[in-house]
Amino acid sequence: MTERVKALREITYTKMHGLGNNYIYINQFEEQLPEEKLPQYAIEVSNLYTGIGSDGMILICPSELAEVKMRIFNKDGSEGKNCGNGLRCVAKYAYENGIVSAEKFAIETLGGIVQAEVHLKYDRVDTVTIDMGKPQWTRGSLPMSGESNDKVINESVQFEENVFHMTGVSMGNPHMVMFVDEIEAAPLTTAGPYFTDHEMFPESINVEFVEVVSDKEFHFRVWERGSGITQACGTGACAAVVAGVLNEKTSKGTEVTVHLAGGDLFITWAKDDHVWMTGPAVTITTGVFYSQG
Amino acid sequence: MTERVKALREITYTKMHGLGNNYIYINQFEEQLPEEKLPQYAIEVSNLYTGIGSDGMILICPSELAEVKMRIFNKDGSEGKNCGNGLRCVAKYAYENGIVSAEKFAIETLGGIVQAEVHLKYDRVDTVTIDMGKPQWTRGSLPMSGESNDKVINESVQFEENVFHMTGVSMGNPHMVMFVDEIEAAPLTTAGPYFTDHEMFPESINVEFVEVVSDKEFHFRVWERGSGITQACGTGACAAVVAGVLNEKTSKGTEVTVHLAGGDLFITWAKDDHVWMTGPAVTITTGVFYSQG
Repeated sequence: MTERVKALREITYTKMHGLGNNYIYINQFEEQLPEEKLPQYAIEVSNLYTGIGSDGMILICPSELAEVKMRIFNKDGSEGKNCGNGLRCVAKYAYENGIVSAEKFAIETLGGIVQAEVHLKYDRVDTVTIDMGKPQWTRGSLPMSGESNDKVINESVQFEENVFHMTGVSMGNPHMVMFVDEIEAAPLTTAGPYFTDHEMFPESINVEFVEVVSDKEFHFRVWERGSGITQACGTGACAAVVAGVLNEKTSKGTEVTVHLAGGDLFITWAKDDHVWMTGPAVTITTGVFYSQG
Repeated sequence: MTERVKALREITYTKMHGLGNNYIYINQFEEQLPEEKLPQYAIEVSNLYTGIGSDGMILICPSELAEVKMRIFNKDGSEGKNCGNGLRCVAKYAYENGIVSAEKFAIETLGGIVQAEVHLKYDRVDTVTIDMGKPQWTRGSLPMSGESNDKVINESVQFEENVFHMTGVSMGNPHMVMFVDEIEAAPLTTAGPYFTDHEMFPESINVEFVEVVSDKEFHFRVWERGSGITQACGTGACAAVVAGVLNEKTSKGTEVTVHLAGGDLFITWAKDDHVWMTGPAVTITTGVFYSQG
């Protein structure tokens, strides 16, 4: 047999971001990547040095339960459940590429069915609203040590020389929110790892500091469990607004502009108890990736 | 006047890497990016979160002095002089895209004219040899404090409890090479910043540890001034082989396989005094970038 050229697989993709949270999006309506190679492709495309560079890979797939299905693979190849910033990008992609034709539609994820609505500007999707579901705020829902049905609202906690007041909120994942007078003075880099590793949170926790400007405007900084400081955490911003209502900093039905390091999100804890998050979705590049695998 | 869609500039690009050193390559024979926007585009495309993600942007341009000209912009938007890993990618791109037709040709850079030769495998460029020029090894060429014409070969230097032996080599940029018995035991993370910041090197220095397996095989690790530990430093690998000849670990005319963290380079200090470096060049992706600028 003669030697032959090693067949490189060409993968058509779009890189998009929501507040800097960036993924390689692949249209599984057109591209059929083999299931067994998905973890390898996610690792390959995410590598900044030898791949495109991203937080991971998101597949946009046909669904039997909704108009479109999202599957998310982290940069280590593991499959994730959900990602608010990614959902907005999936919604933009699905609308602009004709996968859906209505401006309101449902997206299937490993974490359940999510409602989305795109908002247009000059016929392109500018921002997207996502139904982030109903929050919970019992110790058991986080989880946090203590009586399972107890609530954690404005509870004193000591860190170094200071006392902070924390409110625990689950948006499917756990958050502890601490209101501070000045966001820039919050001890994020020290309190973040301290609380994420604290024994009172057996499954760790996302740590958030929030400065309230008014009932319609919060500043927000986050230390994410497993990641450290990140530019944007959609569920954390939702938890901040829920904690704001629970602490009477704002009210149900009020849209709060949350300023994150990566940009702004617009969040409403609606009277039906669902939290609605609106934010941008941006297309960075479209191209063909030459897999070496 | 009616509102109009903001015109996004679409930039056609190719992302390539040499041993993980990755750039966005733009064909200026086809694309004419405006000169005043080049720093901004370099910053935009290099951003991992909101851009493609890269070490910078390299333009492949017409030349009056050679077959092709390379301009390199760092990820902070500043223009750089030269990059061995980038030169190999430019050579591959120029050959595969018909900008040059011969396998040997010249590339113009801000640092001078460089000779290149592509090596084919199944009609594609697999590896590229670059003429890295003639080395120098006087104190003045580095520069290093002391008599300008003195050489720095196997000179004792104290670091913490150990004495190392250093050889200074300039490949256009300055390197200090220290031979060690075991590359894995070399104190790169501590000695690197110590020597790069040392007052005896007024323009700083790249710090390299080298383990000699044989006259044809070296292990190599580098601390680059301004960058810290990197996967690959082409000029550093060349300096290691020159230092190897000066210390009689190998000889002129012998091709040495240098194992870097990012992969292998094949380096010969030829009898005509030029250093020839051969290594891989890989095309990762081709696409269109939507500039927001």
